[in-house]
Amino acid sequence: MSVLVVGSVGIDRVQTPKEDRSDLLGGSASFAGLAASFHAPVSLIGIVGNDFPAHHRAVWEKRNIDLTGLQVVQGKTFRWHGRYEENMNNRTTLSTDLNVFADFKPQLAASHKKLPFVLLGNIAPDLQHLVLDQMEKPKFTIADTMNLWIDIAQPRLLELLPRIDMLILNDSEASLLSGEPNLLRASRWLRDRGPRYVAIKKGEHGCFLIGPDGAFAAPAVPLDQVVDPTGAGDTFAGGLTGYLAGQKEVNLSSLAMGVIEGTLLASFNVEDFSLNRLKSLSTQDLATRRQELLRLINPHP
Amino acid sequence: MSVLVVGSVGIDRVQTPKEDRSDLLGGSASFAGLAASFHAPVSLIGIVGNDFPAHHRAVWEKRNIDLTGLQVVQGKTFRWHGRYEENMNNRTTLSTDLNVFADFKPQLAASHKKLPFVLLGNIAPDLQHLVLDQMEKPKFTIADTMNLWIDIAQPRLLELLPRIDMLILNDSEASLLSGEPNLLRASRWLRDRGPRYVAIKKGEHGCFLIGPDGAFAAPAVPLDQVVDPTGAGDTFAGGLTGYLAGQKEVNLSSLAMGVIEGTLLASFNVEDFSLNRLKSLSTQDLATRRQELLRLINPHP
Repeated sequence: MSVLVVGSVGIDRVQTPKEDRSDLLGGSASFAGLAASFHAPVSLIGIVGNDFPAHHRAVWEKRNIDLTGLQVVQGKTFRWHGRYEENMNNRTTLSTDLNVFADFKPQLAASHKKLPFVLLGNIAPDLQHLVLDQMEKPKFTIADTMNLWIDIAQPRLLELLPRIDMLILNDSEASLLSGEPNLLRASRWLRDRGPRYVAIKKGEHGCFLIGPDGAFAAPAVPLDQVVDPTGAGDTFAGGLTGYLAGQKEVNLSSLAMGVIEGTLLASFNVEDFSLNRLKSLSTQDLATRRQELLRLINPHP
Repeated sequence: MSVLVVGSVGIDRVQTPKEDRSDLLGGSASFAGLAASFHAPVSLIGIVGNDFPAHHRAVWEKRNIDLTGLQVVQGKTFRWHGRYEENMNNRTTLSTDLNVFADFKPQLAASHKKLPFVLLGNIAPDLQHLVLDQMEKPKFTIADTMNLWIDIAQPRLLELLPRIDMLILNDSEASLLSGEPNLLRASRWLRDRGPRYVAIKKGEHGCFLIGPDGAFAAPAVPLDQVVDPTGAGDTFAGGLTGYLAGQKEVNLSSLAMGVIEGTLLASFNVEDFSLNRLKSLSTQDLATRRQELLRLINPHP
């Protein structure tokens, strides 16, 4: 089944302790859409300016992503500039130019409104609501978010919770939104407000998933080097949603394997800048690392 | 098979944001020995003063721990006083009175020298060496350590590494000792210096184990409340070693299940002060939580 992915599309400049790279394809929908496409047909909903380069567009086209929902308007594409500190965990946003993204109003075509799986990538809760307002009856809706929306749009984010089946956020965001430093209590607080499932991302420490039928915890793939962590969370969410769309049922078991697929794709994503590693990723690469990860978490290998 | 556990035995005062408790049984051998006794016969090697209360001694006696290696000498027992901050992860040592522990020289009886499994609990590397000097031919030797010894006794700690089969330490200690912030590279650095296996404890984020036959990663048991984290690492090491001593072979698979047992016992330990929770822990309690933890890490429940 198909996945509708909505989010930001941008052009990034990323500085790491070792490199400074510009004109990179970025944005939550870019990462999430490409990741989801490894497991399911994807329709991408977003907006770019008429400066958006054809070679960035080609990244999605090569993976047969439906781009009829990608609005192209007069003006400049959203731009983000960030810098990572030595440990690659902390980053500073140096500039954000919303450009055409400031007037983004997701408009779904008739075919998009019927799609069964929806990933509301990390964008303003208002825009996430706008997408759900147009959907007919999705089978499963997942929303990602970030600390910015918890800070500046918390009421709208809380209103979103009863409308979604699953919320994905990182550990500090879960504590910030719930006011609970303890992650188990934070996840209960969040589930009490709507979503049946909550997935808490813990970066290099993996992910904790909880729902009405139980919980699942997975470590991240141990990596000896991280080149660029940008988009790891979006890639995780996209990989998870794409995997789910290919399964008969949505339950703890399929979600757990979705967490595994999201973890795998995110582990590849951080090995290079932008979507460079995912662009060249083969099914065999994924299968090999999947086997390694499943062995890593199995106490009876 | 039996386990020799050597380490400190002390009387603790522990302050948490909610409580201030004195005269608690503490020390690395106290926690590790009791934890190991859930899976194997244990001989405890340590030292206490003649002020050491009978009710503390009774904690081990009730679990049939061999105390013939516990020296009782004139003077006061080792005392430690620490305080945990609000998040329960950071703690400050407010005082350490070595007392009789300052002159501790482990002296093994003939029966102790033949024991097949050795856990060198967290004490000065000099004392860990002294124990190994007396052992005849242990089957598997595990050492725990802490940042204090990395700071003040690093050469002796490095000399210990070729003499042990497995090193257990936490993530910040692994980075401190190896100079590698990345845990995969840190574990390689450590294994290059001797121990076939390295287990890196990550507190609430679980444990990463690596050896010549592969790696295993386990999350901690998600808990909604931590009362007192003191001794969690010692309990983990004791539970792991005790479990191993009951297995036919030591390999990635038995060590992985050892990590699970250590994780389980540590999760109970932090639910109350000192050894209070372990004292009343039943085999059924352990079995129930073991099933929950194995379900938590299984993507195909």
